[in-house]
Amino acid sequence: VSDDVPSRRPGGRTARVRADVLAAVTALLTEQGYDALSIEDVADRSGVHRTTIYRRWGSVAMLLVDLLQLGTEDDWRPPDTGSLAGDLTAINRELFEALTVEPSLTTAVIAASFRTPEAAEALSRFWADRYRRSEVVVRRAVERGDIRAGTDAQQLLVSATGPLFHQRVLLRWPITRADADAYAHAALAGVAGPRGDNGASQLP
Amino acid sequence: VSDDVPSRRPGGRTARVRADVLAAVTALLTEQGYDALSIEDVADRSGVHRTTIYRRWGSVAMLLVDLLQLGTEDDWRPPDTGSLAGDLTAINRELFEALTVEPSLTTAVIAASFRTPEAAEALSRFWADRYRRSEVVVRRAVERGDIRAGTDAQQLLVSATGPLFHQRVLLRWPITRADADAYAHAALAGVAGPRGDNGASQLP
Repeated sequence: VSDDVPSRRPGGRTARVRADVLAAVTALLTEQGYDALSIEDVADRSGVHRTTIYRRWGSVAMLLVDLLQLGTEDDWRPPDTGSLAGDLTAINRELFEALTVEPSLTTAVIAASFRTPEAAEALSRFWADRYRRSEVVVRRAVERGDIRAGTDAQQLLVSATGPLFHQRVLLRWPITRADADAYAHAALAGVAGPRGDNGASQLP
Repeated sequence: VSDDVPSRRPGGRTARVRADVLAAVTALLTEQGYDALSIEDVADRSGVHRTTIYRRWGSVAMLLVDLLQLGTEDDWRPPDTGSLAGDLTAINRELFEALTVEPSLTTAVIAASFRTPEAAEALSRFWADRYRRSEVVVRRAVERGDIRAGTDAQQLLVSATGPLFHQRVLLRWPITRADADAYAHAALAGVAGPRGDNGASQLP
């Protein structure tokens, strides 16, 4: 992206414009969905001139890509509750909130990812980053001796979270907090160590 | 649907027209995706006149709805391998094939379900039917005494299949047959009976 704005330091004008524009994208995406999103509307909502938006992002698809890129730049860390059971449950409860809050940015972005390949790739990268950051939950459990050292962290995390996504987003059935807990619990049982002391009994 | 064609018995002209039209929808959907689907193309491909298609289905969205309805009228039954481990693994392997075959009708229909609410509802109904039919796998395991009687069949089935869908369709990461087996295995561990004889050791 060519850019003749000199200040690119965090907190500078460039960063502020980006924050304003992406906040508008977030609001419009959750309110109206991707199909209704237009650069005109983003300009109106953000107060940033549309020529600036066109020059910097070029298209609605690239606005969504940048929103997902912004998500990889935050300081999100998975919860640290002291047990694998607690950590997986807390992750699934966060996810439950994100999938059921109205309006849900998470489900809006998923829907958008089926509209354009750029959004699909950006969403895949966003989640790769989130799952990578979540691996620490599994490493800590290994260090505590709760599960065996060779445990596949990604597989465990997808086992815990996948059913919740599936039930809500693809099956489009209602989900409850109890479902979130049950799927975390079931995934945990799948990696129970030979001693069986994986913290399952600490589940709420 | 009003219809002046007299024969509606299975195998009659009405049924043959439906079969031809929906076969064309299936082919075009997997080749080109939902956005490129048009009644013109379906008419060309099926050899059924477009006015017949318009009169009977009315729109591309309703063609997709009827395709999913047709899926609920088939005689699909889940595999009966003699153990819960075997049955869940076989289900996940079927799913693995459906999600990875090129072109995949399953992923094409999922993508289409994010385009129109009618398709989303029809897909939700289709899967509700498939998961309901799959419950017999859990009932048989309860009858064999492999798992406790109160086991939530839907939750177990979503635990086994959800991660595979999630990894392929939403995360858009590659999936392997080993992933399919591992997710079936992990779900099974989540419902292991007190005696631990749930057939896990029979997993391939």
